[in-house]
Amino acid sequence: LSENRIRRILLRYRTPIERTLKTYLDQKKLQLGEVNRWGPDLTDRLYQFSTGGKLIRGSLILFSFDMVSHDDMSSAGTSASSAAASAAAAYELIHSFLLIHDDIMDRDSMRRGMRSIFSQYKALLENESGSQSLHEGEGLGICAGDVALLFAVELLARSLSDHPERTLAVLLLWSGELQHVGIAQMQDVYFSTLEREVKEEDILALYRYKTARYTFSVPLATGAILAGQTEETVRNLMELGEYFGLIYQIVDDRIGLFGDAGKTGKPVGGDLSEKKKTLYYHYLFRLASQAQKRRLSSILKGDSVNAPDLEYVREVLKVSGAFQRVEEKIEELRAAAEHKLECLPVGEENRAVLVWLLEHGIIREG
Amino acid sequence: LSENRIRRILLRYRTPIERTLKTYLDQKKLQLGEVNRWGPDLTDRLYQFSTGGKLIRGSLILFSFDMVSHDDMSSAGTSASSAAASAAAAYELIHSFLLIHDDIMDRDSMRRGMRSIFSQYKALLENESGSQSLHEGEGLGICAGDVALLFAVELLARSLSDHPERTLAVLLLWSGELQHVGIAQMQDVYFSTLEREVKEEDILALYRYKTARYTFSVPLATGAILAGQTEETVRNLMELGEYFGLIYQIVDDRIGLFGDAGKTGKPVGGDLSEKKKTLYYHYLFRLASQAQKRRLSSILKGDSVNAPDLEYVREVLKVSGAFQRVEEKIEELRAAAEHKLECLPVGEENRAVLVWLLEHGIIREG
Repeated sequence: LSENRIRRILLRYRTPIERTLKTYLDQKKLQLGEVNRWGPDLTDRLYQFSTGGKLIRGSLILFSFDMVSHDDMSSAGTSASSAAASAAAAYELIHSFLLIHDDIMDRDSMRRGMRSIFSQYKALLENESGSQSLHEGEGLGICAGDVALLFAVELLARSLSDHPERTLAVLLLWSGELQHVGIAQMQDVYFSTLEREVKEEDILALYRYKTARYTFSVPLATGAILAGQTEETVRNLMELGEYFGLIYQIVDDRIGLFGDAGKTGKPVGGDLSEKKKTLYYHYLFRLASQAQKRRLSSILKGDSVNAPDLEYVREVLKVSGAFQRVEEKIEELRAAAEHKLECLPVGEENRAVLVWLLEHGIIREG
Repeated sequence: LSENRIRRILLRYRTPIERTLKTYLDQKKLQLGEVNRWGPDLTDRLYQFSTGGKLIRGSLILFSFDMVSHDDMSSAGTSASSAAASAAAAYELIHSFLLIHDDIMDRDSMRRGMRSIFSQYKALLENESGSQSLHEGEGLGICAGDVALLFAVELLARSLSDHPERTLAVLLLWSGELQHVGIAQMQDVYFSTLEREVKEEDILALYRYKTARYTFSVPLATGAILAGQTEETVRNLMELGEYFGLIYQIVDDRIGLFGDAGKTGKPVGGDLSEKKKTLYYHYLFRLASQAQKRRLSSILKGDSVNAPDLEYVREVLKVSGAFQRVEEKIEELRAAAEHKLECLPVGEENRAVLVWLLEHGIIREG
């Protein structure tokens, strides 16, 4: 399969997700407009925010649904495939909910190349009331995230009519896994208040529950549940998703340290100034010399990391061998994923797409 | 009916709600303990926090369920009544979710006579990391609220097996109505940034969607849906609930101004210092003299309101006639509720309980 063909395969899911999101949010805009101005305000912002991302998670639901569906279901227009589109759109709303709340906690004012939602509201309040309103902007952002989650629940629940038992299984999977995301995020916030090092297994547990299962396992499993697959297939897809997700998170950390701010839409070095306990951070402090550690500590003490400091961190990562150790971890996970992939009953084309995702650091460059 | 008997009727629902909450949260505590420390930490705090309140909303679900049930269903132990207990416990978790997030927005450090959840986490972080951690405490509080909502969704979804179509209708009712609560809360946050007066109809819309429907209409309707009642009965209960809820909110405002901090568990005068746009606030500024308004404005400019200032506000409320105007509004709502109540097909005893609730300012003293 050519790279272009694979990109096209993954991009074809964008349209049904965007369309389902638009239909749902347009209807909510009308309905909530009767309550006050904030319903229409929020549905507009949410559509722009949600479709500003790559829709990886929603696309994976539809990809997985098609991958494991029998031929008589996978064609567009069946009720099962419309339920899958609703689930995909709902999951993107859930992703927006998480990002909106995360941005408040991390005080990230930019996201997806635009202002983050709480930051948009902060600007709105400053415009209208003329006062500095960080806390109130955060308050509106908390509500906006809550409502995004409630939109997702409603959108998913509305699709229950055709296959109630399947959509119900999805709702139980999502609510359970999102609890994991929530308590993993608590761990993340907690770690950010600590000066000391964090154990590798704690970092990997955090990656597993905050990112890996949520970003890959759950979408892959959701598609399979909606297609009526066996519990065994669902479980295998959950496991495969964990490997994909761990790689994805580590590559994301690498982009945070070595990436180009223009492409990522987030400030480079942000993970450092937020004292995120990444795998890089872990190996950096384990492998650096005493002198290097002293300078690293003083760099990380501040509220921001400037360009020369970032260059120094990159340098120490390379010369200490920390960078290499993380690369080895990625290779190990990649091998495990490929092994798991061989056991799954999926067609050649879909397998090729998944292998391509693995080899290309999983959609980050798309 | 004697007052004691009515109190006993309302209190009898506490036990099944507490038991259902405990069974669910104990099971989650065990399961989430495999992820990290925050799952068990949160289930403990949530049980204490949720049962620290009066469980009005959950009790109303069970009261309504019994009120409209046929005799063969209302006895304890049927599958429908177990679904009602799950719904009641889930709705109390939803209430905790909303309070946890509200307390962050309002910077309320006390709730239900204990520290609010974000404030508990702020103290935990200061203990463990030794640093001032308001923002991180708020971050943990945001996550805690999110997880409480996800617990509620899971608990409700798990009860779907017996009457899937009824529990599904409840899920759609809740997600839709909680969106109203969310955007009404946004309005509330927005109003708090404004110096100017707010129109009476905007205040009443806020009360309707943020409190009245959520606290009374939805619980009453939920009980009726789970008991398999007609759409007409559900609609009538929603309307009745609005009147009850508006009275409840206004009485709550009165307690905020005239109540005893020892009984309410919240600082008296808090609504004033937060510049909440209550009906009292509205009439106060409409009916006060120019001189009174100047002094009121200067009192409300500060971050807190001391005892003599509060006494002055109370005095102006009385002499300006503002207090009386709000009392008249309550009477008007009470009459409308009684009229609505006459049209509902409920037994004498239940009608007596509802009338008693109306006449006693709706459970606030219980």
